[in-house]
Amino acid sequence: MTGPMTTTDLLRKYTNIRQHSVEICAPLEIEDYVVQPIVDVSPPKWHLGHTTWFFETFILQPNVPGYQVFDSQYNFVFNSYYETIGARVIRTDRGNLSRPSVADVYKYREYVDQQMKTFLESDHMTEKVESLLELGLNHEQQHQELLMTDIKYILGHNPLFPAYNREKSSLKIPSENTQMIHFDEGVYEIGYHGEGFCFDNELGRHKVYLNEFEIADQLVSNAEYLQFIEAGGYSDFRFWHAEGWEWVQQNKAKSPLYWHSIDMQWMHYTLNGLTELDLNTPVCHINFFEASAFAAWKGMRLPTEAEWEVASEHFNWGKRWEWTNSAYLPYPGFKKEAGAVGEYNGKFMVNQMVLRGASEATPAGHSRNTYRNFFQTSLQWQFTGIRLAK
Amino acid sequence: MTGPMTTTDLLRKYTNIRQHSVEICAPLEIEDYVVQPIVDVSPPKWHLGHTTWFFETFILQPNVPGYQVFDSQYNFVFNSYYETIGARVIRTDRGNLSRPSVADVYKYREYVDQQMKTFLESDHMTEKVESLLELGLNHEQQHQELLMTDIKYILGHNPLFPAYNREKSSLKIPSENTQMIHFDEGVYEIGYHGEGFCFDNELGRHKVYLNEFEIADQLVSNAEYLQFIEAGGYSDFRFWHAEGWEWVQQNKAKSPLYWHSIDMQWMHYTLNGLTELDLNTPVCHINFFEASAFAAWKGMRLPTEAEWEVASEHFNWGKRWEWTNSAYLPYPGFKKEAGAVGEYNGKFMVNQMVLRGASEATPAGHSRNTYRNFFQTSLQWQFTGIRLAK
Amino acid sequence: MTGPMTTTDLLRKYTNIRQHSVEICAPLEIEDYVVQPIVDVSPPKWHLGHTTWFFETFILQPNVPGYQVFDSQYNFVFNSYYETIGARVIRTDRGNLSRPSVADVYKYREYVDQQMKTFLESDHMTEKVESLLELGLNHEQQHQELLMTDIKYILGHNPLFPAYNREKSSLKIPSENTQMIHFDEGVYEIGYHGEGFCFDNELGRHKVYLNEFEIADQLVSNAEYLQFIEAGGYSDFRFWHAEGWEWVQQNKAKSPLYWHSIDMQWMHYTLNGLTELDLNTPVCHINFFEASAFAAWKGMRLPTEAEWEVASEHFNWGKRWEWTNSAYLPYPGFKKEAGAVGEYNGKFMVNQMVLRGASEATPAGHSRNTYRNFFQTSLQWQFTGIRLAK
Amino acid sequence: MTGPMTTTDLLRKYTNIRQHSVEICAPLEIEDYVVQPIVDVSPPKWHLGHTTWFFETFILQPNVPGYQVFDSQYNFVFNSYYETIGARVIRTDRGNLSRPSVADVYKYREYVDQQMKTFLESDHMTEKVESLLELGLNHEQQHQELLMTDIKYILGHNPLFPAYNREKSSLKIPSENTQMIHFDEGVYEIGYHGEGFCFDNELGRHKVYLNEFEIADQLVSNAEYLQFIEAGGYSDFRFWHAEGWEWVQQNKAKSPLYWHSIDMQWMHYTLNGLTELDLNTPVCHINFFEASAFAAWKGMRLPTEAEWEVASEHFNWGKRWEWTNSAYLPYPGFKKEAGAVGEYNGKFMVNQMVLRGASEATPAGHSRNTYRNFFQTSLQWQFTGIRLAK
Repeated sequence: MTGPMTTTDLLRKYTNIRQHSVEICAPLEIEDYVVQPIVDVSPPKWHLGHTTWFFETFILQPNVPGYQVFDSQYNFVFNSYYETIGARVIRTDRGNLSRPSVADVYKYREYVDQQMKTFLESDHMTEKVESLLELGLNHEQQHQELLMTDIKYILGHNPLFPAYNREKSSLKIPSENTQMIHFDEGVYEIGYHGEGFCFDNELGRHKVYLNEFEIADQLVSNAEYLQFIEAGGYSDFRFWHAEGWEWVQQNKAKSPLYWHSIDMQWMHYTLNGLTELDLNTPVCHINFFEASAFAAWKGMRLPTEAEWEVASEHFNWGKRWEWTNSAYLPYPGFKKEAGAVGEYNGKFMVNQMVLRGASEATPAGHSRNTYRNFFQTSLQWQFTGIRLAK
Repeated sequence: MTGPMTTTDLLRKYTNIRQHSVEICAPLEIEDYVVQPIVDVSPPKWHLGHTTWFFETFILQPNVPGYQVFDSQYNFVFNSYYETIGARVIRTDRGNLSRPSVADVYKYREYVDQQMKTFLESDHMTEKVESLLELGLNHEQQHQELLMTDIKYILGHNPLFPAYNREKSSLKIPSENTQMIHFDEGVYEIGYHGEGFCFDNELGRHKVYLNEFEIADQLVSNAEYLQFIEAGGYSDFRFWHAEGWEWVQQNKAKSPLYWHSIDMQWMHYTLNGLTELDLNTPVCHINFFEASAFAAWKGMRLPTEAEWEVASEHFNWGKRWEWTNSAYLPYPGFKKEAGAVGEYNGKFMVNQMVLRGASEATPAGHSRNTYRNFFQTSLQWQFTGIRLAK
Repeated sequence: MTGPMTTTDLLRKYTNIRQHSVEICAPLEIEDYVVQPIVDVSPPKWHLGHTTWFFETFILQPNVPGYQVFDSQYNFVFNSYYETIGARVIRTDRGNLSRPSVADVYKYREYVDQQMKTFLESDHMTEKVESLLELGLNHEQQHQELLMTDIKYILGHNPLFPAYNREKSSLKIPSENTQMIHFDEGVYEIGYHGEGFCFDNELGRHKVYLNEFEIADQLVSNAEYLQFIEAGGYSDFRFWHAEGWEWVQQNKAKSPLYWHSIDMQWMHYTLNGLTELDLNTPVCHINFFEASAFAAWKGMRLPTEAEWEVASEHFNWGKRWEWTNSAYLPYPGFKKEAGAVGEYNGKFMVNQMVLRGASEATPAGHSRNTYRNFFQTSLQWQFTGIRLAK
Repeated sequence: MTGPMTTTDLLRKYTNIRQHSVEICAPLEIEDYVVQPIVDVSPPKWHLGHTTWFFETFILQPNVPGYQVFDSQYNFVFNSYYETIGARVIRTDRGNLSRPSVADVYKYREYVDQQMKTFLESDHMTEKVESLLELGLNHEQQHQELLMTDIKYILGHNPLFPAYNREKSSLKIPSENTQMIHFDEGVYEIGYHGEGFCFDNELGRHKVYLNEFEIADQLVSNAEYLQFIEAGGYSDFRFWHAEGWEWVQQNKAKSPLYWHSIDMQWMHYTLNGLTELDLNTPVCHINFFEASAFAAWKGMRLPTEAEWEVASEHFNWGKRWEWTNSAYLPYPGFKKEAGAVGEYNGKFMVNQMVLRGASEATPAGHSRNTYRNFFQTSLQWQFTGIRLAK
């Protein structure tokens, strides 16, 4: 960010980002907004309400004198995990709520957007509020990606396999071979520096000592992953972590999420519907266990997040969230902020792995090579992929 | 039934019953049709589709040459438990399906109704098909009651407590005292006899030997049940079956379903919304364990189903399904029919208890004093009540 | 029982029954006394302690002035389900307790036996105490059967398949064909009458009206049950209750408990170790679902408990507990006794089925044709069998 | 290790270490060898058999021509997690096995020890076998610590609270205050170097870049931890990871394992039995969540494993396994060995945290400052403690 934003800039940015959430949901039927097929997936109407609740709770309520909340029950319904802010619907119950209706959730968005507009135009912005506004907008962008992953899950697990849209996506792996890029050992620096927005978990630019390493300039393709499957990768425990092998057996896992073997033919569900498996696109929807097992089968490994960040200027990224072999832990000097906003990142820093890059579902303007995404090791429903290292 | 029905009679009956399901759903938002908060509750759109699937599968497909099914996937989606008819969505997954949409389900109903009309007017009715038609209509009436119980559950477990409708129901227990009606010991007869429709589990009119008994002429009221609660009924194991006591402790049960103690005041959710507890209506939404514990606390017991049937002409019934202390077992000579229809009743004859009577949610024309309703002992979400015996 | 028992009679009876429990355990290693492979099985040392605790708690403590309990902690350890008597080790935890040691449990038995002897010789017997003594001895005999079933389970689920003893049992089904015995419809009487001991659930001799029926004079043999298996009985849902079919699928059930198909040969574990399946013995260790499915496959049914009792003088019984199609419910006029002893039977009268007869593991002198045994429908570990009716 | 070991050295070392396992079990009753109260705890007889199985399987069988295994079933019973070696008793079932008896397990040990003695004296040692022998002995030492933790769990969760021994342990925190030791930022080296034995996960001495840090010269005492409890540490979500807070709520956690609040007095179970809480000993039996929450409450943090190793020469360690904030991940260049031995460490490198140091239960000669112990974040039953950093 170069220089302070004007009121007009802020308002335009707010309006654009908020509008994008609505656009993502445009192809949905009302029924699609409501269901929650697994605990990790939230109903789309919940995402729309929750992101709105963030602005109402953290910006309007504390800063607009006499602000009337749209509905006093919504704090209970749309709070996600902020223990500081009181009781909340537990995550597994979100799909049981037929009300508020989708129409009411859109009214809620309009009400809060109108109030935000008035507030932003009133020129009472302070540095602290602007920082919360940035956080709220980045929060909404994170939920835009979750909206895409959750919509895909909802439609892709329906026996009718409805398409989300009909335009073909064109993500391709070039046909030439993957090259390994070499880096010398030594002290490097990682972590965010600059003036723009970043999350607290990226802060604390700091030195790391890396051994010599190599990293691939391409993502692993469906064709390569299919070789792993056909070589018996899912039935040979030697490639898997003990916990990963348990996951394979309990889930009878045999392929990435959304792959279906139908009449001896590999199909996959995409946002365009159920289609023949596209061998040249980067493999997607694999969990950390699968990514690690594939790498072990190749005699390679996943990069650490420091290696990835150091190397990131030398390859294209942004098609898949790339699993690293780094656990999600605090950078040196990390401090949780006080209050509810401090619950954003720090409390998840255990038993999750870092993903780097971004995906085709990440909204424009919401990616950096210092961004630290993180998920539990068994989860497949994000747009995740594999880049090899050694 | 007196004499064979004409085509016009049949068509009018079909149309009326089918229309009633639609009327039950009239007050719903689209979102209300979709959710499944517990496994026993089905989404309303599933009931609408499943009852339609019954006519398509058992009447149209076998009897209309060249019949085109509305959608070949619907057999998978709307089959409930008929193993004979192939794969089905497992019960716990019904609430994960946003598609088919509510609009599509209504189109499905219209399509099948149109085909049924054509078929009924074609005068190709046989005795066997007429019997299946009767079964299909009674099946739809059973689902009408389930629609009411499931809608009540969906709305009554939403934190916003939306009302289903606003007219006050007027079910009252008379203020005069309950009287015990006395019956002598001896041989009695129970089971269906007559010409009309009944389920296979009611058939086999047969003799039973009953000891002398007394049975109440009134249902137990909320006021009486409240005395049980206030006397510590939910915390004294002596009144409960061992399995019931486990249920109390695991669920921290303290009252019937839909009762809420708010600011020291007993409220209950009704189809009109959340209101002050009405002391003079018959207690409702209690499970078998609660009914038994209440009776034990009173020094009484629940009647057997034979006692209930023998006595039923001497009291008013039809407000609540009345728990009996009879297990759901076959009558002498009971035989399962061959094929899918034979799965209707017989396979549930274990570990369930019989309820007799009918409830305020039972559709008109769907009750008989030989009707054997049955549910598992822990379930509360039906319109169930208590009549005492000794 | 004919006439009151003398002190000497009582003492001899007490000593004999108590001694029999010890004899049952004689072939065990100390380790065998300790484990609890499933929740339904209790460690043998627990049975030895629990039956002793019964006499200490219900006879010695209330009747011997200044009685010193052997160890005040044992009430917690050896109470089974008597809520009246206070806290207890939950059933699933029994196998986690290495202490008290087996030696200490035997010391406990000796201490209580010595105290009981002194008490019985002191001639302070009252009718009430004598009745409790009878109950305690019958209780111990019930646990003697459980000792046998639990020891069989512990040894039979050990990968080394150790034998309990080496004498061959000689239970055989005669080679001639099973005959059906016919009974006319009419009023019959069932329930205990007489002077001797019986449990409260057998009391209330009462009339029942039975339809005409036939009942087999022989139990179903392993050979017949094997035909059911080979005819695909475990993979055809039509023979099973819905709940039974679920049990089959969840447990991948394919045969009775203790049957093993090894190198294309059916073997079964018996108390003599792992041996070739004996085709001529009555089928054993099947649950209610299996018994019902077998009967359905035969085009027959299980008898009711009233039919069984009425017919029981016309066939030999006592080799297997025979599943009936009667739910375990109170007889007319059944009343629970006050206090802890009242917890003996009544509180289990839900969701269990009645078994009639007795088994090879039932101790001598502990069987009557009015005896009502009862277990949940999925349990296989008792010595259970099948007698057909129609 | 300085120079190659002679046959006599090897044999003495083997004999001493094997003997120590037997000594640990000397105070046990036979019953104590058998039970498995939670899945993480194994029955002592299993440890004795499993460590023996290791020598039989990896040394005797491949290297002694014509070696007769003691019992061919023991591979099934005593294999722990080596998928390469075939089927195994699943971990949760170990406590269900009464056989082999304790006497048989000791016979097994004697048989294998005799064979090992003969083999070692035969002078056919190769470098590869000697390396497996070292691994087997270190493996036995690891199980010696587990024997202690599991015996403590078995006795400490028995309602009789039997003591393991009666000598008072004397571990004390000095009364003077804890000092923080300061380290400058810069490049440091960690990982094993030297000639002696180490595990594969310690190998690959490598450089790390550390920011400036401080680390405590003392462990946290019971007195300090009690302040955390009394300050409401277990009821304030702000100190906990999200997953830790879930653990607190699901387990209603209020204190370290083995602490009991009895009549308003804090007691703890120690190997000497149940005694008054000793305020001056280092806190023990806390999991990673508790260690992290305590540090957060203090406004400090846990050290990383690199910080710990770098600082370890400046403080006393060896009383408690010290939780670090480092996830258990491979060092640069880590390679799994081929075959079953390769399953030793690498496959656990996900979702576990590193502990450094050693504990009072660690056998003599089995600790190094490069040793990487690791456990899941919810486990409390090891001898774990807290050292603070900032």
